Order: sequence, then C-alpha cells, then structure tokens
Amino acid sequence: MPEGFSLGRLFSPNSVAIIGASPTPFSGGHQFTRFLIEHGFQGRLYLVNPTAGEILGLKVYPRLTEIPDSSVDYVISCIPAESVLSLLDDCGKKNVKLVHLFTARLKETGRDKETKLQSDILEKARKLGIRILGPNCMGIYYPELGLSFNYGLPRESGPVGGFFQSGGGAAEFVRYAALRGVRFSKVINYGNASDIDEVELLDYFASDDKTKVIASYIEGVKDGGKFARALAPAARKKPVIVLKGGRSRAGAKLALSHTASLAGSIDVWQALLRQYGAIMVSNFQELIDQVVAFTLLPPITGRRVIVAGGGGGKSMVSADVWEEEGFDLPELTAEFRKKLKEKVPQLWDWVRNPIDASLFQGTPLLDINLMEWLSSEDGFDICVANLTQDDPLPNDVWEKVLAPNFLNSVAAIKKKGKPVVCVIETGEIGPAEMESWKWRAIAETRRQIVDQGLAVFPSPESAAKAVRRLVDYWAWRESEDELL
Amino acid sequence: MPEGFSLGRLFSPNSVAIIGASPTPFSGGHQFTRFLIEHGFQGRLYLVNPTAGEILGLKVYPRLTEIPDSSVDYVISCIPAESVLSLLDDCGKKNVKLVHLFTARLKETGRDKETKLQSDILEKARKLGIRILGPNCMGIYYPELGLSFNYGLPRESGPVGGFFQSGGGAAEFVRYAALRGVRFSKVINYGNASDIDEVELLDYFASDDKTKVIASYIEGVKDGGKFARALAPAARKKPVIVLKGGRSRAGAKLALSHTASLAGSIDVWQALLRQYGAIMVSNFQELIDQVVAFTLLPPITGRRVIVAGGGGGKSMVSADVWEEEGFDLPELTAEFRKKLKEKVPQLWDWVRNPIDASLFQGTPLLDINLMEWLSSEDGFDICVANLTQDDPLPNDVWEKVLAPNFLNSVAAIKKKGKPVVCVIETGEIGPAEMESWKWRAIAETRRQIVDQGLAVFPSPESAAKAVRRLVDYWAWRESEDELL
Repeated sequence: MPEGFSLGRLFSPNSVAIIGASPTPFSGGHQFTRFLIEHGFQGRLYLVNPTAGEILGLKVYPRLTEIPDSSVDYVISCIPAESVLSLLDDCGKKNVKLVHLFTARLKETGRDKETKLQSDILEKARKLGIRILGPNCMGIYYPELGLSFNYGLPRESGPVGGFFQSGGGAAEFVRYAALRGVRFSKVINYGNASDIDEVELLDYFASDDKTKVIASYIEGVKDGGKFARALAPAARKKPVIVLKGGRSRAGAKLALSHTASLAGSIDVWQALLRQYGAIMVSNFQELIDQVVAFTLLPPITGRRVIVAGGGGGKSMVSADVWEEEGFDLPELTAEFRKKLKEKVPQLWDWVRNPIDASLFQGTPLLDINLMEWLSSEDGFDICVANLTQDDPLPNDVWEKVLAPNFLNSVAAIKKKGKPVVCVIETGEIGPAEMESWKWRAIAETRRQIVDQGLAVFPSPESAAKAVRRLVDYWAWRESEDELL
Repeated sequence: MPEGFSLGRLFSPNSVAIIGASPTPFSGGHQFTRFLIEHGFQGRLYLVNPTAGEILGLKVYPRLTEIPDSSVDYVISCIPAESVLSLLDDCGKKNVKLVHLFTARLKETGRDKETKLQSDILEKARKLGIRILGPNCMGIYYPELGLSFNYGLPRESGPVGGFFQSGGGAAEFVRYAALRGVRFSKVINYGNASDIDEVELLDYFASDDKTKVIASYIEGVKDGGKFARALAPAARKKPVIVLKGGRSRAGAKLALSHTASLAGSIDVWQALLRQYGAIMVSNFQELIDQVVAFTLLPPITGRRVIVAGGGGGKSMVSADVWEEEGFDLPELTAEFRKKLKEKVPQLWDWVRNPIDASLFQGTPLLDINLMEWLSSEDGFDICVANLTQDDPLPNDVWEKVLAPNFLNSVAAIKKKGKPVVCVIETGEIGPAEMESWKWRAIAETRRQIVDQGLAVFPSPESAAKAVRRLVDYWAWRESEDELL
C-alpha cells in the first residue's frame, strides 16, 4: 500500500471525473453521471468521452488530460478493462488520488489474462501513487457530499457506515433501510478489493466519528488474522454487523466468480467473529433489521419485555418468539392491575403480558391509557407495540381511532424514555391493494412511526431477533468495560 | 359427543340465523351480517334481535322462534354469554344443528363463574343434540357456500383446508395467502374448543376430498394421544402443517387466557409432530409460505437446485441459504456450457450455478434463452428464479425488457413441466412508494406470476425453508409407501 492520503480524505474529493460518460441511458457511464447530478454533488464534476459533446447538460471532454482543472481528485472508470492502463497514465498527469473501477471482467472471470491485467493495473497505480477502489464495484455513497451509486438514495446523512462487496446488495440495503428511517455516513461498495479492502475499510469506519454503527457484506478476506486484529478494537468502539456471503460450497465457488474472493471456512469465520465481538447476520433483511435496532434503539442491556397490542394470535406468536430469543415477559404488577381494576373491572384479573388489546374493545380503556400507565412502570426494559391490522374495521374507525391510538400510544412510551419496538406486518401486496384505503392507511401509519424516529419491524420474529442481538452486544460491551 | 351429523354436513347449512344482529357497524352482530351478504351466502339468512326492524336491507326477527322457517341449521351467536343458555332452548325448538358462539368471555377469563357457564352451555347443547363451535371464535369460512368470517376474503374455492384457534390469525392467514394465489376449501376458527376440537377437525379435513393440504394453528390439545392417533393417518394422506402457539412460558400462560387451552410441553409436541409426519412451522408467515409450496409446487423429492437471476449479492445469498437448507447446487453441464459458448463466448467458462444474470447485460443472451435451455436440462429438480429489482433501470427498460423477460422465462420453465420457484423481494413500502412506477411495476409483475399459478416467495430464505419442508414431506411419504 502506498503512503498517501487517508481513506477519509480520498472519499471526500473536490473534483470528480467520469471516464466513459455516455448518453446511453442503460450504461454505467450514463448512470453515474445521472446519480451525481441528482444527488447534487458538491464538488466539480467532469465528464470524459472521446466523442465529446454534451450529456445531461454537461460538457464532455475528449480526454481526462484535457480537463482545464489542474487536478482531479477522484476518477470513476466506466471503460473496458483493456483501456484502464492507459487511463492510469492520464490519471498520473492529473494528480488523481483515487480511481474507482466500475470497470469489471477482471480477476472475477477466473481467467489468467484478466487476472494478470488486474495485477498490472494495481502495480501501475501503486507506482503512480493512486489508490484503487474495485474493480467491479459501484463505489461511494456519501450523501453529505452528494456522491451516490444509485438513484433515489437519501440525501440526508446519518450514523450508519457500511462496506459492501456486492453493489446490488449495497443499493438494496441503503434503499430498504432508508424506508425504515435509517440514514448513512458513507456506504462503500468495494468489489474485487484489489487495493482498498475490508481491513482498511473496517479501520476507517471504526475511526470515523460520524459513523456510530458499521454494517458490512463480505464475501472473502485476504488475511483472516489481519481482519481479526482490526475487528477487535472496532467492535469495542461501536457495533460491527457482518453479513458473510459464501458460507456454502456453491456460495464459495460463486465468491470466486463474483468478486474473486476466497470465501474461507464458515466455521472459522463464525468462531472469529464471535470471539472478537462482531454481530453476525444471515441475510440482507436481517442486516437491515439490525441497523434499525442499533440506530433507533438505545443501548439496552435488560431482557424484560412487555408486549401490547394485536389480537390473541399475534400476542401468542409474540410471546413465543420473544421468549425463544431469550427475553422474559414478566407478569403485570399489582399496581398496574389496580389501575386496570378501576377502569375495566371486567378484565383486570384476566389480562396478562402479552396484553391482547382486542379484549378492550367496547371498554372505556383506550390503548393510550394503557401505554401511559405502562410507561410509568419500572418492571420492564422494552415495550413492544404490535399494530392490530386485520380487524374488520371500517375506514373511519381505522383512521380516526385505531391508527391515532397506536401513534399516540407509542409516542407516550417514547416520551417517558422507555425503549419501544413497533411491529407492523404487511403481506406482499399487489397493484389492487395499493389502491385500497386499508393498505394505504397501514403504510401511512408506518411512515408516521418511522418519521417519529421509532424502530419498526415487519414481523415479531425479525424484531425479537434484532433486539436480542442488540442486547447481546451492549451486555457484552458492559462486561468488557468491567474487565478494563 | 352426541351422535349426529358429520362436520361436513354441519358446515353446509341451508339456513343461518345471526342472533344479536345489529345496526352498529363495529359490532360482531353487524359484521357477520355484512360478511354473509358480501360473500353471497347461498342459503337462507335470518337476522334476530329483540329490537326487530331492518339491517342492511334484511328483515330482523325479534326472536329465533319467530322465524317462519320450520328449521334453522346454523346459528351464529353474537349475544352476551349470560343469554346463551336461553338461546339454546330456542335453538332446540328450531332444530338447530350447530351453534357458533362468537360470544366470548367464558372459560378464557380464568374465572370460576364463567368456566362453569361454559360447561353448562355445553351440557345443555348436548342434551338438545346441538353441536357447539367455540365459544370465542369467528366460525366458518366456506367460500363455495358463501360463508365468511371476514371482509374481502376470496370467493373462489381451492385445496387448502384449515383449522385455527385464533380468529385474527385465521383471517390474516387467508388474506395474505390469497395474495400469493392460495385458495381454500374451508377454514374453521374454533376458539375455546369446548365441543368441536382439533382432533375432530383434523379427522374431518383428512377425509374431506376437496382438501388437499391442511393448515392449522393450535394453542393446546385436550388429549395428546388422541391427537397423535388422528395425525398419523392424516399426514400419510395429505400434508398437515401445524403452527403451535404457546411454545414459551409466557405463551402457555396466554393460551389459558386466550382460548382456555393447556399448551403442554413444546418438547413433547415437537417429538410427537415429527414422529407422525406433521410439518411444523414457527409463525404465520412460515405457515403461508408452506401452503404456497404445497399447493403451487408438485411433489418434488429431489434436492438439486439451479438458481438464476438477480445480481451477484442476491445469487450469493441464494446459494448460501439453499445449501444451508440441504439442497445441492450442481455445476452447469458440459452441454449447457457448449450452448453458452456459442452465444456468449466472453462468459461461457465464467458463469456458474447460481447464475448471476447481471453478467449478461450487453450480451445477446436474454434470460428467456437461458431459461429455455435450462428447462431442457435433466441435471436438476427445481429451478429458482430471482427477480432483479434494484438495478437502476429506467421505467421503459423495466417494463419492456426486464419484467417481460422474467415472466417469459418462468413461463418457459413451467411449460416444460419443471418446478419453478420465484423470489420477489420488497421492502416495507410507504405511501410515497405506492405512487412510484417502480414499486407498482414490481407488484404488477408479482401479480402476473401469481396469476400464472406459480409459487412466489418474499425472500430466498423463506423460499428455501418452505421448499425444504415440502421435499422432506414427499421424501418421507415415498419412504413410507415403500415400507407398505
């Protein structure tokens, strides 16, 4: 690795050039241009293509060296692999510090010629003092600066930093986590990791003050010992969530052809990750649930849960999955029962934790009262609020009673500083359902919950699993701190 | 249990009376009236309420005995528990065969008085030769006859029969499974199971010719041995899927207050279910995935899977989860590679199973060719088609190229009689996303897949898990048949 700028500085370019910028909508050279314009890149943006002309209203330079700027910090290469060596010569002349190779079909093809070309590119870059991101990747999403690798990603920043070996995985992660209220410091997609790799990225995010939680998707590491040495201090500083791709035989073979990665033994991986305090998840959905938990819930270390809302079946499933994940559901306290007795004498001795809210239909007890009382209780660490959503309620009851009650209830809990976990389930809806008031109302309720900064999960299982890993992590941190 | 009509006959009434029919929209007595009218109940429908008058355009009789019909087969009771005993006297006079007690707050309250009342109701019903469904339940969904316990459930029939101890669970199950293309013979919600219970319902669905797959949600059984004796022959005839509620300590307590059920030890349950060939699932989502697998996929016993579509990250997660569920992902055959070599010489040696479809961008190979070739291959048992959905494709590319390609591809596989499993993932979308062309296009594609009668799952994990249980079941049946 050459001496040079820190990743933090490399990822904050004042000027960017897109090599192979193109007017063809479906091409990488067009897409990157569009992403940077749409996200309002804060620096100077240059497009390069021998055909020159204009793309999306911007002037196109025939060659990197013809850009009038004396230096270009960051180059995005969308040209074929064969042309990259000569591009690097031009980059040398323009004081380029970082080249992102969207360019692919190199070592991941498994062929000798392409593998050698990747080595040659790296060797030349090192001689010129240029760092390489990739090849075979989407590069940098850095919302504060207006750098993006996809359309429609959030423009606001937030506490999650990520490094992903898969571009599609990174884009879906950002997009779907954003719908749950998560925002990002930077997310880096690093593909074949020929130069900048998982160890350097982990170090970077561990020391980056704007990153409070680290999320990663890793297909292979070059040096397990080095990764472990980076992981240990990182995980003691902030949560490091790892999704390991290539756990299976077929997956390990695919890792070679996807990002030229040696997947390694999953048993070794799991032991290593557990030992050094990483949080291991099994798929992209769990990765999203986990960043929701870590960014929208406080550092909880207790495992006593009150579950409220939903009918009997949902309450039951909730009780089972929360307990199966190691949580306790304490009995309701005598004091709480006393309040219940005053308001709902017909129910006070019957209701238990989880609280089946459907029992209160037709009584003067509203969910909001229930939640306000709960928020004053001391005997629990987490409140889980299930949204009842399949009662055959008419539109006006849903919109005027149930939805506001739910929103007010969770707001009441939050106001008292108690951690609240919301569960709103939906089916996989079709076009007709998108037109129906009911599904729209559920989506609108979820949006309002997300806008309040509350953690919402799509099922009792996903909530219980993510919160269990959250509590495991903070309990581990607490025990580590006591040792020190 | 009195001698009398079979459940099949009891569930097919020629006449129904709703006791406690009400003009108040949010009441059970109103809802049931509305459900039966909306679903077009095929028999004679009578409403009963002392206030008489008219509800939803139907005449209301002040008392059951004042209905001019000489007999009423089926009574839905929406009146308070205290009034049920005298209702039963009237039912005796009207030759009522089955009383569904939507009426609740009986044994599930845990109180002596209510528990005794439930016993008294059952005793009186037996003397009168009347069967009881419930109390504390939603009753019968029987689409062919137009009986329903919720709004907007499908009116067409299908092969899934179900018995559910939770009404909300039953309704969500039917609604969400229906969005995935599943249809039902009958679904019965049986609540406290004071008379008609899990054993009788299992026997009934096992012998019902219109039911090919049985789905159940059970909080407790009265007699484990009896249930096992019913389960063994049922599971040899058709798949019996069981979701057990009350697996945890808190869940077991809740089972008492939800449906007055003794949950029993989960270890004993699991051993029993496994021994007698039931398929055990952990939550309502898995129950839905499982009926999708059993009704829309053939009786597969092989475990060789080809995975195609989606980018590298999705292919990787797919490889990992399918293999982790015990499937093999065989290498592509020499013959297949030969075809690839002719069409895409730049890729033929590089592509592998899972097939990362993003590699073919810009080549003359379309997904449809790939799938047509695959459908002629013999070396696999199941084809998994992942929909790529987060490429930054413009609207027209999505709608004119990607979506039709995906639809044509899976149709090509299906035409050759190969089992195909589709995976279409979505986030939990908000109101703004419901307006966007992209999410609408994904929902529309999914609808078309469902309309073609294909099995679609919301994630690689849910697909792999459900198909694994499907293969396990049919392999077990095959081994059982060989023993006989």
